[in-house]
Amino acid sequence: MLTLYYAPHTVSLAAHVALAESGAVYDAHRVDFAAAEQRGPDYHAINPKGRVPALNTPRGVLTETPAILAWLARTHPEAALAPLDDEFEFARMEAFNAYLCATVHVAHAHGRRGERWADDEAAWEAMKKKVPDSMSQCFELIENDFLAGPWVMGEAYSVADPYLYTVSRWLEGDGVDIARFPKVRAHFAAMATRPAVKRALAEQGLEG
Amino acid sequence: MLTLYYAPHTVSLAAHVALAESGAVYDAHRVDFAAAEQRGPDYHAINPKGRVPALNTPRGVLTETPAILAWLARTHPEAALAPLDDEFEFARMEAFNAYLCATVHVAHAHGRRGERWADDEAAWEAMKKKVPDSMSQCFELIENDFLAGPWVMGEAYSVADPYLYTVSRWLEGDGVDIARFPKVRAHFAAMATRPAVKRALAEQGLEG
Repeated sequence: MLTLYYAPHTVSLAAHVALAESGAVYDAHRVDFAAAEQRGPDYHAINPKGRVPALNTPRGVLTETPAILAWLARTHPEAALAPLDDEFEFARMEAFNAYLCATVHVAHAHGRRGERWADDEAAWEAMKKKVPDSMSQCFELIENDFLAGPWVMGEAYSVADPYLYTVSRWLEGDGVDIARFPKVRAHFAAMATRPAVKRALAEQGLEG
Repeated sequence: MLTLYYAPHTVSLAAHVALAESGAVYDAHRVDFAAAEQRGPDYHAINPKGRVPALNTPRGVLTETPAILAWLARTHPEAALAPLDDEFEFARMEAFNAYLCATVHVAHAHGRRGERWADDEAAWEAMKKKVPDSMSQCFELIENDFLAGPWVMGEAYSVADPYLYTVSRWLEGDGVDIARFPKVRAHFAAMATRPAVKRALAEQGLEG
């Protein structure tokens, strides 16, 4: 049995969708951010970073979205969630996921988590102001250079797709019109029809 | 033939050391950041993100340190650079690398790349001021929870090690005394004695 620790409106949705795609039996445990559960001792024992997602497996806990996604794909080959027979294509998929993780997610986080990178409220405001610009730059690159279409890696769906979908959901709140990016918009619409996406959204109490 | 595009004093050192460990035949091409070569059209054709590292392979270009490291380990099994026969341990290694990529590297970058996340110089100063604190928090987690010792994954060396070594090199400039973290310090010292580290540093014109 796998247990996903998630919180709604966070990146944990990507791992949640991938779990639903994988065919694995899993349980989804909501971490109560409003009650700061992620900073309490119980959750610290699961993930000392105090973040979601965390995935409890029979071997122990995995953290970090790119690592969880790659592990799910490798350990559920029958679900065909990555180019498992081509290490170069797999690495290209991992590079896309790393870009979402370290650049796009980080750009987004400056709109609401400024205290991670400065102690000064005026700086938080300056960071917030930059988000539409930095997110737009990221999605221009994705649109023009990385999203092969219809899925991230081309004709074959992979775990990069729920990751892109999750991050694309943030655009509206970040003040960026997804219509500027036709391939991203088509990807977003195609994802919304997938049963695994509907299931994960329902399990998190979110709308499509 | 593999060609690594690097710049000294950047994270590209991690891939460079891993290349030297892998036994692969490679060439190292310095990207001239002082001349803004990374933003020119020639380099854009290699990596539209305008960053290093990029690794040109016979199949095409790979970017993003975690993806390059995992690919090198997977495609050079004889070099034993990752727990290749254990997907769970491999994923734990990838989680460590993702943490360095998306949290530790990002914390460091706020000391010198504030323009990525704000347009306001006062905000850049506020970000710079926070770096010793945020880098210390990251390395406390690494010391207490992630670095098994002597290597990141325990007794077996992996590509997580040159990555940690590369990021540890930034501590002094970030105003953090590595001596506060005895396991990290011992790891740093052990890395410095490896021939691959000496070779990569020499090829980049850096000191140990």
